[in-house]
Amino acid sequence: MKKFEEKTIQSELKFKGRIITLQVDEVELPNGKTSNREIVKHPGAVAVIAVTKDNKIILVEQFRKALERSIIEIPAGKIEIGEAPEITALRELEEETGYTTDNLQYIQSFSTSPGFADEIIHLYFADNIVKMEQPVGLDEDEFVELLHVSLTEMEEMVKKQQIYDAKTAFAYIWLKDYFKEA
Amino acid sequence: MKKFEEKTIQSELKFKGRIITLQVDEVELPNGKTSNREIVKHPGAVAVIAVTKDNKIILVEQFRKALERSIIEIPAGKIEIGEAPEITALRELEEETGYTTDNLQYIQSFSTSPGFADEIIHLYFADNIVKMEQPVGLDEDEFVELLHVSLTEMEEMVKKQQIYDAKTAFAYIWLKDYFKEA
Repeated sequence: MKKFEEKTIQSELKFKGRIITLQVDEVELPNGKTSNREIVKHPGAVAVIAVTKDNKIILVEQFRKALERSIIEIPAGKIEIGEAPEITALRELEEETGYTTDNLQYIQSFSTSPGFADEIIHLYFADNIVKMEQPVGLDEDEFVELLHVSLTEMEEMVKKQQIYDAKTAFAYIWLKDYFKEA
Repeated sequence: MKKFEEKTIQSELKFKGRIITLQVDEVELPNGKTSNREIVKHPGAVAVIAVTKDNKIILVEQFRKALERSIIEIPAGKIEIGEAPEITALRELEEETGYTTDNLQYIQSFSTSPGFADEIIHLYFADNIVKMEQPVGLDEDEFVELLHVSLTEMEEMVKKQQIYDAKTAFAYIWLKDYFKEA
């Protein structure tokens, strides 16, 4: 879909970092005028809604510098260059939680901040996840606490804003539906 | 919550734009080592799940330069400096859709991309919205098409990835619950 397309007149790279880059695009608007769009480029991410055999949801608590606080999220991580999203999903599940699955199901993908970033999150579901005998461990700058919670406990975390990000907010109402139908 | 806090050693502004700024924070990790965090600062946004008396959901289609395509979203917009989120919500509903309400209900807030941005979206709900007699109109660089859809049509849009952003993906499953209970 290209309705109201904004054609790029020129694009200027403003910052190139370890994870994100930032560019400003001068664009031609549908009415012929011009404007600037500030755009953050991100490699994309995956997230996994993971449930154990006894219906516990696996969450991770971690400090998020951008928010200056720790929040509780579903396991997630950035896609490495050239990596297929389902490989990232399995890798991040294993690294962050020590659980694995042979039945990863794709749910859907969405853009997190279409107004200024191209980041897409690919969301997966895995039930009957199993503990790995030899967990693989985290990246050296990652500090994460693993939580096993019920749907009711997850609801409390949403209310208390301990769960406070879009993908995990989505996961909570998705799981509410899932457990209702189960 | 400050678990695994990452203390700022120094913060360097890398880009200051019209809407976002970007800084790199050097942080001390819980293990005493240091790392860098690339952080985008954003003023925050609101979004409104808006439903007419005859149960049509109000959506807007617009071009998103970061994604290089147009997508269909719930009405949303950035918070102006010093503006209370519920004022932004009403303003954006009026500007983008020509509808208004005297019964805006707060749902919840969430961070869109906690890994690299501080953007928070505050989500509201309004049913029984009414058409304004004198619509206020859009910002001069905004081009938006208004849509009135049923829940079934919205589901199709999710499947076709015409709906493709986190807040609207959330809105769809939130509305599925809402109409089930209504």
